[in-house]
Amino acid sequence: MTDFFQGIEPVRFDPQGDGDLTFRHYDPDATVMGKRLEDHLRFSVAWWHSFAWEGGDPFGGQTFQRPWFADAAGGDTIAAAKMKADAAFEMFDILGQPFFCFHDADIRPEGADFAENTANLDEITDYIGTKMERSRTRLLWGTANLFGHRRYMSGAATNPDPDVFAFAAATVKTCIDATKKLGGQNYVLWGGREGYETLLNTDLTREREQAGRFLCMAVDYARKIGFDGAIMIEPKPQEPTKHQYDYDVATVYSFLKDFGLEDEVKVNIEQGHAILAGHSFEHELALAASLGIFGSIDMNRNDYQSGWDTDQFPDNVPEVARAYYEVLRAGGFTTGGTNFDAKLRRQSLEPVDLIAAHVGAMDVCARGLKAAAALLEDGALETAREARYAGWEEGDLLDSDLESIAEKVRREGINPEPRSGRQERLENIWNRFV
Amino acid sequence: MTDFFQGIEPVRFDPQGDGDLTFRHYDPDATVMGKRLEDHLRFSVAWWHSFAWEGGDPFGGQTFQRPWFADAAGGDTIAAAKMKADAAFEMFDILGQPFFCFHDADIRPEGADFAENTANLDEITDYIGTKMERSRTRLLWGTANLFGHRRYMSGAATNPDPDVFAFAAATVKTCIDATKKLGGQNYVLWGGREGYETLLNTDLTREREQAGRFLCMAVDYARKIGFDGAIMIEPKPQEPTKHQYDYDVATVYSFLKDFGLEDEVKVNIEQGHAILAGHSFEHELALAASLGIFGSIDMNRNDYQSGWDTDQFPDNVPEVARAYYEVLRAGGFTTGGTNFDAKLRRQSLEPVDLIAAHVGAMDVCARGLKAAAALLEDGALETAREARYAGWEEGDLLDSDLESIAEKVRREGINPEPRSGRQERLENIWNRFV
Amino acid sequence: MTDFFQGIEPVRFDPQGDGDLTFRHYDPDATVMGKRLEDHLRFSVAWWHSFAWEGGDPFGGQTFQRPWFADAAGGDTIAAAKMKADAAFEMFDILGQPFFCFHDADIRPEGADFAENTANLDEITDYIGTKMERSRTRLLWGTANLFGHRRYMSGAATNPDPDVFAFAAATVKTCIDATKKLGGQNYVLWGGREGYETLLNTDLTREREQAGRFLCMAVDYARKIGFDGAIMIEPKPQEPTKHQYDYDVATVYSFLKDFGLEDEVKVNIEQGHAILAGHSFEHELALAASLGIFGSIDMNRNDYQSGWDTDQFPDNVPEVARAYYEVLRAGGFTTGGTNFDAKLRRQSLEPVDLIAAHVGAMDVCARGLKAAAALLEDGALETAREARYAGWEEGDLLDSDLESIAEKVRREGINPEPRSGRQERLENIWNRFV
Amino acid sequence: MTDFFQGIEPVRFDPQGDGDLTFRHYDPDATVMGKRLEDHLRFSVAWWHSFAWEGGDPFGGQTFQRPWFADAAGGDTIAAAKMKADAAFEMFDILGQPFFCFHDADIRPEGADFAENTANLDEITDYIGTKMERSRTRLLWGTANLFGHRRYMSGAATNPDPDVFAFAAATVKTCIDATKKLGGQNYVLWGGREGYETLLNTDLTREREQAGRFLCMAVDYARKIGFDGAIMIEPKPQEPTKHQYDYDVATVYSFLKDFGLEDEVKVNIEQGHAILAGHSFEHELALAASLGIFGSIDMNRNDYQSGWDTDQFPDNVPEVARAYYEVLRAGGFTTGGTNFDAKLRRQSLEPVDLIAAHVGAMDVCARGLKAAAALLEDGALETAREARYAGWEEGDLLDSDLESIAEKVRREGINPEPRSGRQERLENIWNRFV
Repeated sequence: MTDFFQGIEPVRFDPQGDGDLTFRHYDPDATVMGKRLEDHLRFSVAWWHSFAWEGGDPFGGQTFQRPWFADAAGGDTIAAAKMKADAAFEMFDILGQPFFCFHDADIRPEGADFAENTANLDEITDYIGTKMERSRTRLLWGTANLFGHRRYMSGAATNPDPDVFAFAAATVKTCIDATKKLGGQNYVLWGGREGYETLLNTDLTREREQAGRFLCMAVDYARKIGFDGAIMIEPKPQEPTKHQYDYDVATVYSFLKDFGLEDEVKVNIEQGHAILAGHSFEHELALAASLGIFGSIDMNRNDYQSGWDTDQFPDNVPEVARAYYEVLRAGGFTTGGTNFDAKLRRQSLEPVDLIAAHVGAMDVCARGLKAAAALLEDGALETAREARYAGWEEGDLLDSDLESIAEKVRREGINPEPRSGRQERLENIWNRFV
Repeated sequence: MTDFFQGIEPVRFDPQGDGDLTFRHYDPDATVMGKRLEDHLRFSVAWWHSFAWEGGDPFGGQTFQRPWFADAAGGDTIAAAKMKADAAFEMFDILGQPFFCFHDADIRPEGADFAENTANLDEITDYIGTKMERSRTRLLWGTANLFGHRRYMSGAATNPDPDVFAFAAATVKTCIDATKKLGGQNYVLWGGREGYETLLNTDLTREREQAGRFLCMAVDYARKIGFDGAIMIEPKPQEPTKHQYDYDVATVYSFLKDFGLEDEVKVNIEQGHAILAGHSFEHELALAASLGIFGSIDMNRNDYQSGWDTDQFPDNVPEVARAYYEVLRAGGFTTGGTNFDAKLRRQSLEPVDLIAAHVGAMDVCARGLKAAAALLEDGALETAREARYAGWEEGDLLDSDLESIAEKVRREGINPEPRSGRQERLENIWNRFV
Repeated sequence: MTDFFQGIEPVRFDPQGDGDLTFRHYDPDATVMGKRLEDHLRFSVAWWHSFAWEGGDPFGGQTFQRPWFADAAGGDTIAAAKMKADAAFEMFDILGQPFFCFHDADIRPEGADFAENTANLDEITDYIGTKMERSRTRLLWGTANLFGHRRYMSGAATNPDPDVFAFAAATVKTCIDATKKLGGQNYVLWGGREGYETLLNTDLTREREQAGRFLCMAVDYARKIGFDGAIMIEPKPQEPTKHQYDYDVATVYSFLKDFGLEDEVKVNIEQGHAILAGHSFEHELALAASLGIFGSIDMNRNDYQSGWDTDQFPDNVPEVARAYYEVLRAGGFTTGGTNFDAKLRRQSLEPVDLIAAHVGAMDVCARGLKAAAALLEDGALETAREARYAGWEEGDLLDSDLESIAEKVRREGINPEPRSGRQERLENIWNRFV
Repeated sequence: MTDFFQGIEPVRFDPQGDGDLTFRHYDPDATVMGKRLEDHLRFSVAWWHSFAWEGGDPFGGQTFQRPWFADAAGGDTIAAAKMKADAAFEMFDILGQPFFCFHDADIRPEGADFAENTANLDEITDYIGTKMERSRTRLLWGTANLFGHRRYMSGAATNPDPDVFAFAAATVKTCIDATKKLGGQNYVLWGGREGYETLLNTDLTREREQAGRFLCMAVDYARKIGFDGAIMIEPKPQEPTKHQYDYDVATVYSFLKDFGLEDEVKVNIEQGHAILAGHSFEHELALAASLGIFGSIDMNRNDYQSGWDTDQFPDNVPEVARAYYEVLRAGGFTTGGTNFDAKLRRQSLEPVDLIAAHVGAMDVCARGLKAAAALLEDGALETAREARYAGWEEGDLLDSDLESIAEKVRREGINPEPRSGRQERLENIWNRFV
């Protein structure tokens, strides 16, 4: 067993607490809109950024020093992977959050081929399963890393080489298996290399067809083996590629419609990805809810002024409240949750930084959700919204046709005066609660 | 009759010509890929920027001085509108381009109500029709301006007030009528106010439904009266609103799919709008072609570093060539064309600036299209593209399932090595032709 | 006298108040860090957006209806300007804010030439002066609008035409006179057209020299007539022009250094302009303070995802707190203040929207400043900052040279280990106060 | 000796050449404006991207396979570094370009401490020196990598830890020594970590002082040892850090002015960095020339729509021409040159991709420079520019004062009419040459 966090005690709720290892706002057992706060927020820790990422960026390498990193662990990669799992569950016990998420490549060593990858995944998921028996932390979702290995450099499902498609498909099978084995509530696909660097070498039509079939196969397989969690796509517009096919919620929806999957597949929406696509996070949430495909969220903020995925821990309560307001309007999470796909800044070297970052983020989210809930219960915003559209409640204008409408406008002299949209006043209402 | 352009002669093709009132590259009668260059490019002048725009921007008002502007024309708005039409056709005779485009609000004076607007539109379209009898310039497309008047400040089809919906619908009817009357080959809808400023006061689901019904009615009416041109939506992500529903090609497609209109409605793609949505122009063109909804283009460049719609005349031949390469790959224009939805810089005060800007842009487009055609005829790029996907030609991998594929990968030890994407070499091929 | 605000009562401080016409956080008389809150914040209303702007944007015209607008006022432009002043002071009495700001073009009618402009300005500033006698609201700063009129389309100080330079210089003289006459505490220059649309027609060197001399003359004149307020430049990177010379704080500083004005001229920093230049607002504030040129702020937020100046009222308390934290670290305002260079959304048509927007913004600022003050008084962040650099307290490394340092590194085997930057923990501290 | 490029022949100039291993436009010996084309362009290959970079990005690791990479070279890092140098000179012989550039960390193995780094650098620079004896390729500039190693994660010169400052300073000494030893014509500093991730932990004033002293020491040392090349700073606004101090040309200039270095230090301007700072490349070049600090260029394009440094080979002739037009207007390069700080796309795996990318880029640059030279020789643009400012030729308006000018404006009734900026017509002139 690791003692990576060197005796940090489990984090408790104490509204008057001092320091940054106390929840001052996140009381898992508090009741909000008739539900426990923990059950609203459904926090999850991401294995990759917290335990696998080494602190590198495009201009510099590893900054973190962890006993399970390849260079520190002395070559026994399976032992190192288990040490990593030990540290993960050590952290889960400290945070007490209900969920975690993983990619296959985060938890198992990379093997020489598919068979070795599968064997490694089996061994490590057995190990994690055993650890879960002594933990309250469950699996929110699993996923396959189909972007890191050089074989995927030109895409996985959308690769010009059918052998890569096959390798990726086989890998997804093993990851759905692993997710089901560990009781995962969802399975997520992020197509980090499903896109292109240059149109000059790309056949958009063919690649779209490949992606569609790939997703259909994944859905079919999951259903066949009785995986009853949600299957989700995570939209992102670019980075690493110049253009990624799952650009944003609307684009994913158009793709799902084309392949008849709009009732089978939902979206896992990340704040940073929304931002990179030119949308607000709340836009993407509201749109997904409106289209019936809202699933889950990655709650990590992106610097609005850095053009890459900064994956920072959330720190702005009003922004977070906007997101949860849309989540609550959509009925809240069912199988989904709040995954922190957030990474420490690479200068935050100490183990305590990792704990404190999560504690702070959980408190920010708790404040945001509680404020959103209070406003929703108050009803002032929703009443104003309904009043704005009240004119539509009667009449059958939408069932009419242009000629009849033109005749009506002329006959009745319809000449509407605009009415205030009252944006600033609504923002004032907002700020009374946030 | 106006003599606004003060004796500027019709622009001729002369490859050795001097000055900027000669086509050095655009020979309408040149044959490219078996078709006249004019028939490939199908140039169109936009009434609004060329004749109606006064040179204002958010920080300053009118700079242009035109005899038909309200303050110059002495109050007879119908006479001014006719003077504007005279100047337009004067310019068309100089440029000799085959098409023009208009919004209702560009060509007719604003009336006090719907009836007056309709009467004004009738009178002016009669006048324009008469002018067309003596001109070779035809109508590429008409459209309704559903964003300028204050009644539309909160949207037209998506307005919270059904009376605005009705006014807009009635107006579209008159504009489809006008387009048909003038022999327009297409009808375009740009939803400049179909979106929102703040989610706080917006019902996304309801507004989407309104927009869907509105478009269905427009299609039904056009078909009913025997308008056989294409109906097109012009995507734009934002500006003037914070978020516009017709964000980009993929979003429009998802919308068309939802309302069963994907075979009825196409897209008119503008370079600047593509840029604002985070896409390259050629991406939007290639995607629209792939989805079967490519219609027409607005060929005006946007400054990549200015975050608003700069609507400049194109000046970069290689960029323009990329666009036409995708147009040609899609089979070229049918009813669509190359509309210059471009405006002079507000400092370009003189009438000759307006002519010279179009001449330069037409030459840039001609160079771009000819380069694209030469490359397509050469085939080097297409051969490379096909070779990249050659592995998919045999086999039925896409008809398989995850289990079979996983078994195959394991059995055959599939472990693909990546192959060069050759981007730079393809760019070198490109630059041999551009 | 107008009754534009139709009996809205002066806004009072009431922490339990209801509706959006009460200050719940802004108690002008509350003591914060030993100073009245009003004296910290020094709120100012901007004449232009609140009273002169008509609600237009590049895609649509006027939405607001005000009795003093040209089309409503029946042609007597001086009477209309006085009506506008009446409404302004009516609002000042309701808000009770200590300051306002103006451009000449906001308060006086546009004349036919310089003499008429000057006469109009004299008459209106007399009128405003009289109104100020019965009001507690003072003038924070005056400025000349050198960007709206078509004569300035190619710049004012940097115009290729020396006559425009002269007209602008003469106008600045009258505006400094007017500012002094009304007891203004500062004079501001924003170079909205001091830049270029295209490098192709621009002589950077010459235009920089013109701008430098222009500023020197303004400083000399102000000092000569005994104007003892601060003179400030307002940086902005672009919009309306493609590139504006006063790009950001660092650029303005380089310009001041070149003309020896770094001790004479300060900066008025706007959040939205900082954002457009790729900086955070707090960066620009901290940098200006570090360079000794911090003067005043325009507190209006910009949408991070709209590429133009959205000039919205602030609504995010943590962001505002970041700004005031830097203001307080810099010692607070002296002659400067918090000017709301913010405009209503163009859909916010009603007079009450204008009051409510300011009330909400003032409350947001009060919350932000109080949080910043509490954190500064607590000292946790400053203690951590100092500790981070503690190693520099002794030694004279900065007085050394490369050879000596290299010898020392070699001799002492200096091989430093990195230390955590603790960003997330500092953000947690932040969030305990905000 | 390596045979990495497997028999690719030296690239020759052949305007009718086929394939992408021929210069069709770059004839080193062609005379342009009285100078050999090679002496105009002064091409340089960057060691880091071409030989050290492994093809990784934030979402995936190494794609390239080179015999000298650590995992391939079997552990003898010095032997590997020499193998890398062999491959480099093999490529230089193929391309025949006159220059190369390096960071210390690209050419030598990383040692355990400063002494070992220095010894490694000595050994490798000896080796490179020997190779240079048999090559025509010279050193354009050397530089120290003060951003990759984890010790620099919080900055080098601006680190909160003086030991890091010392380590960095000592390292710069060795790199200036190495640059001099190899006959380098310039020494460059890029402050990739000189900036901050969060203002919360940053002392801007102190860090600026540290950076200023650091640069002074470097200049002093270089001059002391008789290094007579130029010393240059390379501006970049962000990435890897959120904010970098050497943001853009104007910011660097303000910094140089503060430390009295504006006559000692120039700038090396990269297209991609200009773009990230919101400027056009030509803006940064023109500004540097205007301020007297233009030094050299990194000619790699950045994707305008990807918010990180894409470092692609240039492929757009008109854009490149704009840059060279400013270079030529500034008098051309003296010690500086055209460095390709460009990297292959990570999918471009083959050695031939590396050669072809450079060949294509060199041809693009040659076309751009020749077009720019032709336009400059023609003079049409410069004549128009001068004419625009002709009004300034007489008179002493800039020596006047506001009162005199106001009096003159009033007396003479100065009321200027705007004149066309003729942007589109100038763009047409441009396009006649490009």
